[in-house]
Amino acid sequence: MASKPSIPQGTRDFSPAEVSKRQYIIQAIKANFEKFGFQPIETPSFENSDTLMGKYGEEGDRLIFKILNSGNFFFNKNKIELPESLEALQTNSAETISLEQRIELNKFTGRISEKALRYDLTVPFARYVVQHQNEIEFPFKRYQIQPVWRADRPQKGRYREFFQCDADVVGSKSLWQEVELVQLYDTVFTSLGLEGVTIKINNRKILSGIAEVIGASDKLIDFTVALDKLDKIGEDGVKKEMIEKGISEEALVKVQPLFSFSGTFADKINQLSELLSSSEEGMKGVEELKFICDNVADLGLSTAVLDLDVTLARGLNYYTGAIFEVAAPKTVSIGSIGGGGRYDDLTGIFGLKNMSGVGISFGLDRIYLVLEELNLFPETVAATSKAIFLNFGDKEALYASKAIQKLRQENIKVELYPDNVKVGKQFQYADKRLIPFAVITGDQEIASNTYALKNLVTGEQVSVDFEGLKNALLD
Amino acid sequence: MASKPSIPQGTRDFSPAEVSKRQYIIQAIKANFEKFGFQPIETPSFENSDTLMGKYGEEGDRLIFKILNSGNFFFNKNKIELPESLEALQTNSAETISLEQRIELNKFTGRISEKALRYDLTVPFARYVVQHQNEIEFPFKRYQIQPVWRADRPQKGRYREFFQCDADVVGSKSLWQEVELVQLYDTVFTSLGLEGVTIKINNRKILSGIAEVIGASDKLIDFTVALDKLDKIGEDGVKKEMIEKGISEEALVKVQPLFSFSGTFADKINQLSELLSSSEEGMKGVEELKFICDNVADLGLSTAVLDLDVTLARGLNYYTGAIFEVAAPKTVSIGSIGGGGRYDDLTGIFGLKNMSGVGISFGLDRIYLVLEELNLFPETVAATSKAIFLNFGDKEALYASKAIQKLRQENIKVELYPDNVKVGKQFQYADKRLIPFAVITGDQEIASNTYALKNLVTGEQVSVDFEGLKNALLD
Repeated sequence: MASKPSIPQGTRDFSPAEVSKRQYIIQAIKANFEKFGFQPIETPSFENSDTLMGKYGEEGDRLIFKILNSGNFFFNKNKIELPESLEALQTNSAETISLEQRIELNKFTGRISEKALRYDLTVPFARYVVQHQNEIEFPFKRYQIQPVWRADRPQKGRYREFFQCDADVVGSKSLWQEVELVQLYDTVFTSLGLEGVTIKINNRKILSGIAEVIGASDKLIDFTVALDKLDKIGEDGVKKEMIEKGISEEALVKVQPLFSFSGTFADKINQLSELLSSSEEGMKGVEELKFICDNVADLGLSTAVLDLDVTLARGLNYYTGAIFEVAAPKTVSIGSIGGGGRYDDLTGIFGLKNMSGVGISFGLDRIYLVLEELNLFPETVAATSKAIFLNFGDKEALYASKAIQKLRQENIKVELYPDNVKVGKQFQYADKRLIPFAVITGDQEIASNTYALKNLVTGEQVSVDFEGLKNALLD
Repeated sequence: MASKPSIPQGTRDFSPAEVSKRQYIIQAIKANFEKFGFQPIETPSFENSDTLMGKYGEEGDRLIFKILNSGNFFFNKNKIELPESLEALQTNSAETISLEQRIELNKFTGRISEKALRYDLTVPFARYVVQHQNEIEFPFKRYQIQPVWRADRPQKGRYREFFQCDADVVGSKSLWQEVELVQLYDTVFTSLGLEGVTIKINNRKILSGIAEVIGASDKLIDFTVALDKLDKIGEDGVKKEMIEKGISEEALVKVQPLFSFSGTFADKINQLSELLSSSEEGMKGVEELKFICDNVADLGLSTAVLDLDVTLARGLNYYTGAIFEVAAPKTVSIGSIGGGGRYDDLTGIFGLKNMSGVGISFGLDRIYLVLEELNLFPETVAATSKAIFLNFGDKEALYASKAIQKLRQENIKVELYPDNVKVGKQFQYADKRLIPFAVITGDQEIASNTYALKNLVTGEQVSVDFEGLKNALLD
C-alpha cells in the first residue's frame, strides 16, 4: 500500500487523550445510572435485518448499514434469482429507473444482506425485552452504552459511528420515573461539573390538546413543527406558517397565550389549564406535568433548571407522554445534549403489547464538546504514568524494575523507558508524554539503595529511599 | 412481526448479570494496562476494505464481514458493470463455477462493499500508527479493548462478535517489554483471583534454529505444526507426521532432546544451547529467552508460573521473536486464555518500515468461563441496588424520594418501586432482583421521621432514623 492509510468518511480514531476524556464522561453516566437502579445490558452490533427495517421510517431504512451475507453471497443456500432490473441498470441511469425496478432491487439487497448494523439502542432494547420477557423482572430499568451506526452524510459533529447512552424503564406507567429521570439528568451533569443546564419538559398530550381545542387535531404535526420554530422565526413567522398549513385565523386567536408564554411554573400551568379546559387529553397532560414538576421542585435539583417549554415537540411520532430535552448552559452554542420521553407502546412492534416505557439519552459527543469548551475536564483524566524510570542499561533497569513492581502494587502508574538511549531523548519522551516525574537510577543510587526523583515541571531533583519515592508519587 | 424476535447466529445478548461480570474483568485488565503505562486508543468498527483485505490470508478474507455501500449501491457514482458470472450463476451451482468467475465475483463484491468490519485489533492498530505517526511519541504503548467480528461458523465458545483486549508496544526492540508483559499477565490474573496460570514462552528464532540444524529450514511450518501436537499424539505420532512431511530420520535423531525436554529452566536452556550451537539464529533465540526468563525470575511473579515450551508455535507466520500463550490452571479444561508475541515488522504492510512491536492479548470470553467455573466472581460484582423503597402512594413516595436522594449523594445505590401495588408483589420484585434491603415508609415512619429497614435475607426489621439508614446501607 503506497499511499498513507485512512479511515472511512464519518468515522473517527480516538487518541489516548480523547479516549480518556470520553471514558470520563461515560464513567460518570454509568455510575449514576447504577446509583439510580438501572442495570446494564448489551446487544449485538448487528441484528437480523427484519428486526431493524421498517422501524425508523423510509429515511431510516436508507440510513441503516447492511452487511453482506458471509461466504460468497451469491451461492448461499439457494440460488438467488437476479432481478431483471439489474439488466436495466446496464443501460439506464439511476434517475430513469422505475419504482417497480427500485422495489425489486431493494428486495435483492435484502436477500444478499440478512444482517444490519444497529441504528439506535431503542429498537434493539425493545427486541431484547420481548425475546427475554420470561427472564426479566418488570418494571425493568436498563441502561445501555454502545455505538450505533448511520449512513448519514457526514458533516461537522455528525458521524457515521457514535455512542448512545440510554436509560429506560419499561413496564411501569408511574410518573415517579419521570421525576427520577429529571433528577438523573441533574445528578449526571452536576457530577461532570456542568452546572446550569436547562432540562426542558413538555407533554405530548398538551400538544394534542392544543391542536384539539383549536380544531386542528388533523394538523397536529404541522402545528407543532411551526410552533417549534418560535425561537428562530418569531411570533409572526410562526403564525404565517400555520396559516399556510391551513390553520384558521380563529384558531390562532385561541393559541395567542402560547406566544407570550412566561412567568413562574405555576403561572404557566394556570395559563395551560385555562387554554385546555375543554380538552380531556390536554388536561391529562397538564396534570402529568404538574405532578412531575411539583415533585421535582419539592425534592430540589442541584444545579440544573427544569423549564416547561410548550414548543418542545422532539420525536412527536414516538412519544405519548412526557418529552425531555436538555440544553447546555447559554454560554455554549450547541444543540441539545440529551433528550427523551415516554412511549406507551415500546414493544408492540415485536408483539408484546401494553408495555409503557420512559427513557432518556445522553449525547456523548456534544457533552464532550461542551466540557472541552468550558474547560471542565479534570487535569488528571488522562491515563498518563506518574513517573518514568530512565534506562541506563540492563543492571540499572533491573534495579528500577524492582521499584516499579512495588509501586504498581500500590496502584501507582509508572513505567520504564525500554531502551538505553541518550538521556536527553528519554527526557524529551517524558516531556511529550506529559509524565510529571522522572526517576534516575545510576551506580550511585544502586549503591546507596536510593532513587533520584526529578520533578519535570519544576526541574527540582531530590534523592529519596523507596518510601520517599512512594510517598512522592502517591499524592 | 408474529414470531418471537431473535438475533443473528453467533451473536449474543448480555443480561445485566453478564454485563457486570464482563465489565469486572475488563476493568481489571484496563486498570493494570494503565498501571503498566499503556494508553488507550479506539479505532472505528469498520475500516476501508483495502485496509483489511489481504492481511489475514485467504481464509481471513473470507471471514471478514463486508458492509454494503450505503444508498442504493447499484447506482452509486458510476454505473457498476455486472460480471458475466452473474449470468452463469443462474444456471450453474457453486461447485461448477470456474476460478475466473469466482475472481470476477470477488471483484464485484469489492465494488459494492467498500467498508468491512474490524477482524482484529492488530491491523487497525498498525493502520493507526502509520496514519498518526507524526502525533505519536515512540515507543508507543497502547491498549485497545473493542469488539471484533468474524464470519466463522458459530460453535460452542466461538462467536461472530467478541471482544479483544490487546496491549502492544511499538517502536522498541527492548526485551524489557517482554519482561513487563509477563509481569502484566501475572498481575492481571492475580488481581482476578485466578492463581496458578501458566505463561508459556517460546521464541520463533529457536524454532527456526531447530529447523536449520536439522536441515529442514524449508519445512519450518510442517515441522512446528507436527511438534505442536506432542501433547495430543505423543512422540511416535509426531515423528510419524514429520517423516510423512519429508523430514529425514537423521534429523529426527538430532531433535530427540525435544521429546524429553524437561527439568529446570536452566536445564532446558542448556539443552537448547547444545542443540542449537551451530545456528546463529537459534542461539540468538536462546539468549533472548534467557534474558527474559532470568529477569522475570529475579523480579518474581505473584501467582503465575513462567514455563519454557519449545512446542509453542502460535501465529508462526507472524511472530519473529518471543511467543506467549497463557493456560488456565489445570483444573479447568479450556484452551488458552491469552497469547501474544513479538513481530518485527508490524507497520510494514502500511509502508512504515522498521517498527518492531510486541504485545499480548487477553481472551475475555474464556477468562469469563474460567472465573465462573472456579466461582471467582465477587458477590458484589452485579450492579444491584442496595435497597428498594416500597411504594405506598404518592405522599409516602415523596417522603421516600427525599431519603433516596440523600443516599444517592452518598453514592449508595437505591431505588423506589415505581408503582403503588400490593406489597407482596413489591417484595417479590426485590427478591428476584436480589436486592438485599427493603425500606418501608408508612404513616408511622413519616410521623416519626424514621424508616423501617427490612433485611430481605434474614427477614429482620428495624426502625432507624436517616443516619441509621445510611450507615446500614453504606458498607
